[in-house]
Amino acid sequence: MANKLTPREKDYSKWYNEIVVQADLAENSVVRGCMIIKPYGYAIWEKMQTELDKMFKATGHENAYFPLFVPKSLFEAEEKNAEGFAKECAVVTHYRLKNDKDQPGKLKVDPNAKLEEELVVRPTSEAVIWNTYKSWIQSYRDLPILINQWANVVRWEMRTRLFLRTAEFLWQEGHTAHATKKEAIEETKLMNQVYADFLENFMAIPVIQGTKTASERFAGAEETYCIEALMQDGKALQAGTSHFLGQNFAKAFDVKFASESGNLEHVWATSWGVSTRLIGALIMTHSDDIGLVLPPNLAPYQVVIVPIYKGDEQQKQIAQVAEKIKALLEEKNIRVKFDNRDKFKPGFKFNEYELKGVPLRIAIGPNDLKKGSVEIARRDTLSKIVITQEEVVSHIDFNLKEMQQSLFDKAKSFREQKITVVDNFVDFRKVLDDKGGFISAHWDGTELTEQAIKKETKATIRCIPLDNIEESGKCVYSGKDSNRRVLFAKAY
Amino acid sequence: MANKLTPREKDYSKWYNEIVVQADLAENSVVRGCMIIKPYGYAIWEKMQTELDKMFKATGHENAYFPLFVPKSLFEAEEKNAEGFAKECAVVTHYRLKNDKDQPGKLKVDPNAKLEEELVVRPTSEAVIWNTYKSWIQSYRDLPILINQWANVVRWEMRTRLFLRTAEFLWQEGHTAHATKKEAIEETKLMNQVYADFLENFMAIPVIQGTKTASERFAGAEETYCIEALMQDGKALQAGTSHFLGQNFAKAFDVKFASESGNLEHVWATSWGVSTRLIGALIMTHSDDIGLVLPPNLAPYQVVIVPIYKGDEQQKQIAQVAEKIKALLEEKNIRVKFDNRDKFKPGFKFNEYELKGVPLRIAIGPNDLKKGSVEIARRDTLSKIVITQEEVVSHIDFNLKEMQQSLFDKAKSFREQKITVVDNFVDFRKVLDDKGGFISAHWDGTELTEQAIKKETKATIRCIPLDNIEESGKCVYSGKDSNRRVLFAKAY
Repeated sequence: MANKLTPREKDYSKWYNEIVVQADLAENSVVRGCMIIKPYGYAIWEKMQTELDKMFKATGHENAYFPLFVPKSLFEAEEKNAEGFAKECAVVTHYRLKNDKDQPGKLKVDPNAKLEEELVVRPTSEAVIWNTYKSWIQSYRDLPILINQWANVVRWEMRTRLFLRTAEFLWQEGHTAHATKKEAIEETKLMNQVYADFLENFMAIPVIQGTKTASERFAGAEETYCIEALMQDGKALQAGTSHFLGQNFAKAFDVKFASESGNLEHVWATSWGVSTRLIGALIMTHSDDIGLVLPPNLAPYQVVIVPIYKGDEQQKQIAQVAEKIKALLEEKNIRVKFDNRDKFKPGFKFNEYELKGVPLRIAIGPNDLKKGSVEIARRDTLSKIVITQEEVVSHIDFNLKEMQQSLFDKAKSFREQKITVVDNFVDFRKVLDDKGGFISAHWDGTELTEQAIKKETKATIRCIPLDNIEESGKCVYSGKDSNRRVLFAKAY
Repeated sequence: MANKLTPREKDYSKWYNEIVVQADLAENSVVRGCMIIKPYGYAIWEKMQTELDKMFKATGHENAYFPLFVPKSLFEAEEKNAEGFAKECAVVTHYRLKNDKDQPGKLKVDPNAKLEEELVVRPTSEAVIWNTYKSWIQSYRDLPILINQWANVVRWEMRTRLFLRTAEFLWQEGHTAHATKKEAIEETKLMNQVYADFLENFMAIPVIQGTKTASERFAGAEETYCIEALMQDGKALQAGTSHFLGQNFAKAFDVKFASESGNLEHVWATSWGVSTRLIGALIMTHSDDIGLVLPPNLAPYQVVIVPIYKGDEQQKQIAQVAEKIKALLEEKNIRVKFDNRDKFKPGFKFNEYELKGVPLRIAIGPNDLKKGSVEIARRDTLSKIVITQEEVVSHIDFNLKEMQQSLFDKAKSFREQKITVVDNFVDFRKVLDDKGGFISAHWDGTELTEQAIKKETKATIRCIPLDNIEESGKCVYSGKDSNRRVLFAKAY
């Protein structure tokens, strides 16, 4: 605890890994690529879940649960989707272990318990869900179906990083079915908007909404909407996606409905998801060289009270004041921890809570007892102020709101100055290397150019922003005609 | 929808399966033994989760998340536990699919992507968690660890039934680590008590708390506490278990701590869990031949309002009254659905909500408009009453509480008259065949007798009740001395 972090300037990637582990958010497990989400990290995920779940329900969605396993024959039904995920599938082939006669006390896979058909551990659930919708949908009366699932999924990634890319991760996946194309597209956009609102208002992370190019789309989608955020090191992070799946899955699984006019038609589909990856985005947007910085909305505790005392009697007196303040704050639904542990010194505790990103810290010492004061420190600005005990509730209440807004504003202004308009490939390379961030440039619309740029610079088209203005220009790479700019960046 | 259910008297098992499907709770999936939990069933599970989670946190526990997969070498470390689960493990052996050259468009397991070590899909998480605790625990200062996990687990059951026994199920598993045996045993008992309180106060299901015999214990436990409930067909159902694991896992994974006096000692462990099986218990405790009966605490909506009208004008007038009532009830935090769908007749809706077990139904027709009245029907008693619109809120509020209590009382009185004290094996058989329920009988304490009784009658020892009185007697089977009665029953 409280080792100094590697500064971001020195090694951003190392800083990230250290903060995840030292702030007690997560750690690598003995299972390759799978992480353990520790209680403090999981508490942040729970806050996200609660808020997102409320937003999903407010937009008419219900939760359900579908199987972890997808039989191989179902998995391969939608070919593009299958192709997209085939290379990273964990596959269950047997259903029993037995004693290994050659090694007493050890087990081995029982060759007699081979499955007739292999089961894929879901990398995403379109296949198993659309196979189910087939029996749920007969007529337009059964539509729309608006279902979300909170679940674990597995994608056998070769290079993993805590939260950002793990073999198993937690997520939610929405899967909706509609009678018309128009309605499905509206749903796709709506959920992308829900994600944007959640990131901006709740996580204090500004995002750009856009659509993906064909080559960056979800496998099996007709159109992928996304929200893109910018990390402090100038790399972009795809924070959520919402897919218009057209009739691809309905056709693959033969899901038709009788329309009001009596025709049999294929159903229109969407799917959308965000995952524990958001915790990575959270860390890389707001934190500093001292540790995590949490937006008040997401902080497991928003305020920590640390007593500074000598001896039992003083501890007791300060505890009385602290407990009173805690009760007053909790009346306002503010989450407070009073850390009265005797085995750790105040300095140690200060470090711990700075590392863990607790938004506000109240310190109460012997002088404060005499004067009726407390010292308040704010995590993002590292500012300190001494106020009277009577002012505590209103001061905290105000500063939590102020800090939430301030983190967003700071991140947004950082992002704004990291969007660079570029009109030739020399500048493109230079900006990418020196400044990073998003590059707004013309693109000729071909996959060939997209791939060439990626190969030469590692930058990809993050999105075609929804609020783009039509504008004639020449492709930054090929010089061919283009009618709108797109956003390039290196990305996580 | 609204097909008549098979009566319980005729075929209890069929009745159960029909109610699960027709009340839209769950259905079998294409994956053998895995179920799909539909939105209405999942909403009940969410209510359970919310309440249990609150109770866990109130007793000092935090949530975390550990990997889905357990490497085989970890899995086999605690031998008894491994032996107990080896026969029902789904095993991941490969991490990639590839195109099948012989069958265009099809995929097959890539033989080059065989894992060096097989991964077991967790049937329970002791192994992976205790392997982690090893690095979390050095000194007594790190103890206790009080962690819970909400997760899916897989046990390859050969005979499955929706909710009661499925290959994949959802559950919570608590895993705690303690410095002393005494503290671990207290934790084990506390969590069993939490489960008992939850079932009795929230699910309206009376339970008997007890300990399991050695042969019925969790594999790897020193003592298993349990709560046992009685279903309407006279069979018992184990609704939750809490295990004192002694130092077995600490020894298997070499987890030691420096005590206050500086000695290195093995850590003491507990684990405890309840699962979606509880939904099966819920159904089989309260429901009737018409459909589900939900205790108000668990009902996704506690009140449904059904309008009875002819023509648009009347529908509009009734909707005004309904919306007003709905708003007043929601102010009291009562969950209300107003079903104003025009495409279904009132009779159809009545059937649907009776099948789905909605506690209270408000019907509003043209006569009610004139008289300022409504009709209220209660699901458990099927009673109807006409009251004034002014009385609605207080009437509903009272009846929801009354129904919650009444369901518990009814189930408890049913269970009480199904506990039969028996002193010889002829009566034992007779009671088991004719009356069912729990049999309170003396047992000589040997596994031999326990197994013989099981073989001859299919009855098992459900538990040794915690509130048992010491009493000298003779074993109902062997005639040998016994000092306390135990509870036998056939069980799910």
